This record gives sequence, C-alpha cells and structure tokens, in this order.
Amino acid sequence: MLKMQDCQKAINRYLNELALPELPFNLYNPIKYMMNLEAKRIRPSLVLMACNVFNDHIESCKYPALAIEVFHNFTLVHDDIMDNSNMRRGQETVHIRWNPDIALLSGDAMVIKAYELLCQCPPKYLSLIFPVFNQTALQVCEGQQYDMDYENEENVSIQDYLKMVEYKTAVLIAASLKIGALIGNASKEDAASLYNFGKNIGIAFQLQDDMLDVFSDNKEFGKICGNDIVANKKTMLLIEALSGATGSYKQELHMWLKKKEFNREEKISRFKEIYVSLHVDRAVQQRIEQYHKKALKNLNEVSVDKERIQELLQFSDYLMKRKK
Amino acid sequence: MLKMQDCQKAINRYLNELALPELPFNLYNPIKYMMNLEAKRIRPSLVLMACNVFNDHIESCKYPALAIEVFHNFTLVHDDIMDNSNMRRGQETVHIRWNPDIALLSGDAMVIKAYELLCQCPPKYLSLIFPVFNQTALQVCEGQQYDMDYENEENVSIQDYLKMVEYKTAVLIAASLKIGALIGNASKEDAASLYNFGKNIGIAFQLQDDMLDVFSDNKEFGKICGNDIVANKKTMLLIEALSGATGSYKQELHMWLKKKEFNREEKISRFKEIYVSLHVDRAVQQRIEQYHKKALKNLNEVSVDKERIQELLQFSDYLMKRKK
Repeated sequence: MLKMQDCQKAINRYLNELALPELPFNLYNPIKYMMNLEAKRIRPSLVLMACNVFNDHIESCKYPALAIEVFHNFTLVHDDIMDNSNMRRGQETVHIRWNPDIALLSGDAMVIKAYELLCQCPPKYLSLIFPVFNQTALQVCEGQQYDMDYENEENVSIQDYLKMVEYKTAVLIAASLKIGALIGNASKEDAASLYNFGKNIGIAFQLQDDMLDVFSDNKEFGKICGNDIVANKKTMLLIEALSGATGSYKQELHMWLKKKEFNREEKISRFKEIYVSLHVDRAVQQRIEQYHKKALKNLNEVSVDKERIQELLQFSDYLMKRKK
Repeated sequence: MLKMQDCQKAINRYLNELALPELPFNLYNPIKYMMNLEAKRIRPSLVLMACNVFNDHIESCKYPALAIEVFHNFTLVHDDIMDNSNMRRGQETVHIRWNPDIALLSGDAMVIKAYELLCQCPPKYLSLIFPVFNQTALQVCEGQQYDMDYENEENVSIQDYLKMVEYKTAVLIAASLKIGALIGNASKEDAASLYNFGKNIGIAFQLQDDMLDVFSDNKEFGKICGNDIVANKKTMLLIEALSGATGSYKQELHMWLKKKEFNREEKISRFKEIYVSLHVDRAVQQRIEQYHKKALKNLNEVSVDKERIQELLQFSDYLMKRKK
C-alpha cells in the first residue's frame, strides 16, 4: 500500500513536470511561485491513496490529483485577496508580492488550468469525476461567501458555522477521496463512504485550525498565532464562547470585538484566558473528536480488507495529532 | 438558415431556464444580475450559427453556447475590477453595486458554472470541444494580462497590441464559431476556417471599439465616450498616433499623457483633433477593413453552399457597420 509520504513525493514529482508557459511573466510567474511554495499536498495525495484502496494502479489519478492541487491553490490565492492575508505558507501572498490585479488574474488562469488538467484524465472517467469536481468547486465558493457574510453578522450559529466549514474546507478533501475512489473503480457506496470520511475529517481539520491559531506554538504553526482573534474572525472558539459566555466574560468579549484600537498581544492573551475559563477549548476539542470518530466509522464501512484502509487510517490519526 | 436574431432569442430563452441557487445571496445574486443585463449575446449566437452552417440540428449546442456566454460574462466581471470600471452595459458593474470581494468570488463561481454547463454537452463532443475551450480561456487571461502590462509600458508596438487584442477579444469569438462547427460535424479544415473568420472579425471588432470610444455618439455607444483617452489607455488609435506623431503633436501627446490633473472634456477634444490631424482615424479604419477582408476570405473557404454561410456574412457586415 502507498504511504502518505510516497504520495506526497509523487505529487511533487508530477508538479515538477507541469510545464507552464513563460509569457506573460505576470500571469505565469505568480502561478509558479504559488505552486512551488512548500506544501503538504494533502488533497492530491488523498486522490492517490483513495484509488489505492481499491486498485494497485494509480497512474490514471495523476491529472485529477494535479487538477485538485492547482484548484486548491487557486482558492488560496483568491481567498488571500479577500481576507487581506499577507502571508501564506511562511511566504508573502501573491497579491502582496505582486498586486491584487495580478493575483486575481493568475488565480483565474489557475482554475482554468485545473480544468485543463482534469480533462487529461483517461476519458472513460470524465463523466464520473466532472460532476463531483464541478459541484465541489461551486461549494467551495459558497463556503467562502458564507465565511465573508459571517464577518458582518453578529449571531452566527454553530450550525451555520459548521456548514460553512463543510463547504469551504471539507468538501474538497471529500471530493479528492471520492475522485480517487472512482478512478480506482470503487462501487458507488464505497466512493460515498470515502467521501463522508473526507468530509468529517475535513471538518475536524478546520476546527483544529481554529484551535491552532489560538493554542499552538507560532514557529511550528507557520502562521502568526492569534490572527483570528485580532481580526475578530468567527471561529468555532469565538462562536462557542459567545454562545456560552455570561456576565462579565460576555461583556468583555463584546468590548474587545467593538474596540478599534488595542494592544494586539493584550487582546490575544485575554481571549485565550477567557476561552480557557469558559472551557471553550475543551468543547471544541470534543467536537474535533466527534468528527474524527464519525470519519473512522465511514472509513470502516468501505468494503475492502482492513489492510487496504490502513494508510488512510494512519493519515487521519496524523492529521488529528498535528501541531501545525 | 437561422438568423442572428433567432439565435439571440434562443440564447435568451436558454438563459431564462438557467436555474441558479438562491443561497448564498451574495454569491448568486451578482451572477443573476450580470447574466440578466441586456446584451447582444454575440458569442453564444455564433456557436449556434456556426453549427447551423453544417447541420440543421443545433440542439447539442445549447450548453456549450451557454458555457461561452457565462464564461464571457465572468471575464467582464473580473476585468471590470482590474480596470476600475464603474459601468457595464449601462448599469453599475458588480464590484460597484456590491463590492470587489463579492465580484471576485461571483466571477470565480461563474467560470466554474461555465465548465459545468460545458459538461452538459452530449459526451461524444466533449473531447473535441474541451481543448478548444481550455486553450481559449487561458489565452483570454493572457490577453488581459498583456493589456494590464501595456498600461505601464511606454512603447507598445502595433504588433504587441494586435496580439493582445487577438487573445483578449478575438479568440473567444473564434472559439465560439469553432465549437459550433465541431458540434455540427464540420471537417477539421472547415472548423479551422470558421475559427480564422472569427479571429479576424474579432480583431476588427476590437479595433472598432477603440474607434467608437473616440468617435461615436455617447448615447448610442452605451459607454461614456472618451474613457480610453482619459485613462491613457493604449488603444490602436493612441499607439498609431504615438508612432506617427512628430514635433508639436508628439510633445502635446506626451504632455497630456503625463498630466495628472486636467479638464476631462479638453483632453478628449484635443486627442480627437490630434488623431484626425494625424489621420489616425483613417489608418485604423483601413486596418479594420483589412481584417474584415481577411475574415470574408476565411468564410468563403468553408466547403459548403454559399447560402449556408449567408447569415454569417450578414452578421459580419452588421458588426462592421455598428455604431455602438
């Protein structure tokens, strides 16, 4: 069975073979920059691993896997514009290194490139994977829109938040697994089980991201800690805190959320303390474990020998233990 | 034979059937708004007309035609952000009516929607039309990048400009015709002839747009006249003028191009006078006619009875005589 690391290496090899044109520089250089940033290649690796659950021949996954990685990076380039993020994977974001117009247009070219790569998949799979890819791609946009909408909404319910996370993050992980499964000639049921496994792991993954922003070590995480707090970003932690807080905690949270000028470190430190006092960290950790459990149940429903799902099992354990 | 007007009506009918989701409002309302602005539907109509040159059954063109119209509108939404345009088709642009983030994300959803529509074409055509669509879509991005690059370049050659116009505008018109032809079961040679017809008509069309910005009647044109002049936009007129001007005209052109504060009407009026004095209007008009001639030659190369190309012939005459 293929291990995650083997898949990551294969994806990086595939990416090296990806020949992008030279000109216009300002269109293709940002794409090359973005695709060459050090990344975990989780989604395309999952395409290969899911295929490998059912089949020892994974070659047909090459282009769909690349398509998904390029699509994922397109969403990052555009999200970074919308979210005003300066850093990505420890480096400047495209719209900072170049400018927002160039980031916009390079992103556009990336989504088209993703489709071009998808089209290079053996034709017999196209009618199976296009509907999954198209639906997922639209859902990712919907998720990002909900995320932006929630910035301006006072009351975001836990349910709303989970739907946003599902669309913005989880469905692409789910679709990666489903597309791999379909190319591996899995049954519809097995492909659906892997989709659900991915969806639940994906939600857990994002909730963990919310936790890591607050409770991780800066250096290990690769992003600056506390950014979500400083930006009043609606995360599962903030939503849980706002729904659970009463009295002086409630007052203080609202005070911080309204404050236009503040000491960054002070705000981060107070939020951390309030989160811990309200046991929000424990509540979110419990949710993460619930989704992890659901995911494992989905994975065990796949009708193959247990050894064939071993690598995905290990991968999900690794994800749940990550520190960055 | 189908007339242009019949095709335009058919496209508007198809567009009315296009069911877009309700939620999230801020993702789908801008798309509905954009797709409902009154428009000539030239590109999707050309898909139907090109198919009809070879075949009386045009039903299989429905989704590719819609895909091209949605793709075209996606490029407009994003171009309007990059070009800082406030008005489009006599109405506010999406990024003005909503905001740039919403315009960015709605545009993203539109390009995905375009691919989703393309996938609904009868499967046997997919392997024929996907390469055309993908290549064209990337070229359109390349054209827009060159257009932005040229804004900051002092010396843009006529050749550079024509390549930009070909990519930014002409190839999508060309691809519309080629895709229609392929679905009509045209030979490769005939599909290529129609592609070239579209490319040359498309270049002529854009050069005419450059002319209309300066020399048309405001109300008929639908855009405010002289915008290109005010914005120092590199148009064929400006490039011809800069390459042809000497002495005081040259000095005055460069003076205006450098001037940060000026009277809008005065600048437009002086540019018009200089263009006329330098016979730039005549030179560009001659180019337009050259491309029109080339286009007609391409059209006549198509191996069908002359009556079958009659409508495309009329359409190209109509385009060349347009006042807006």
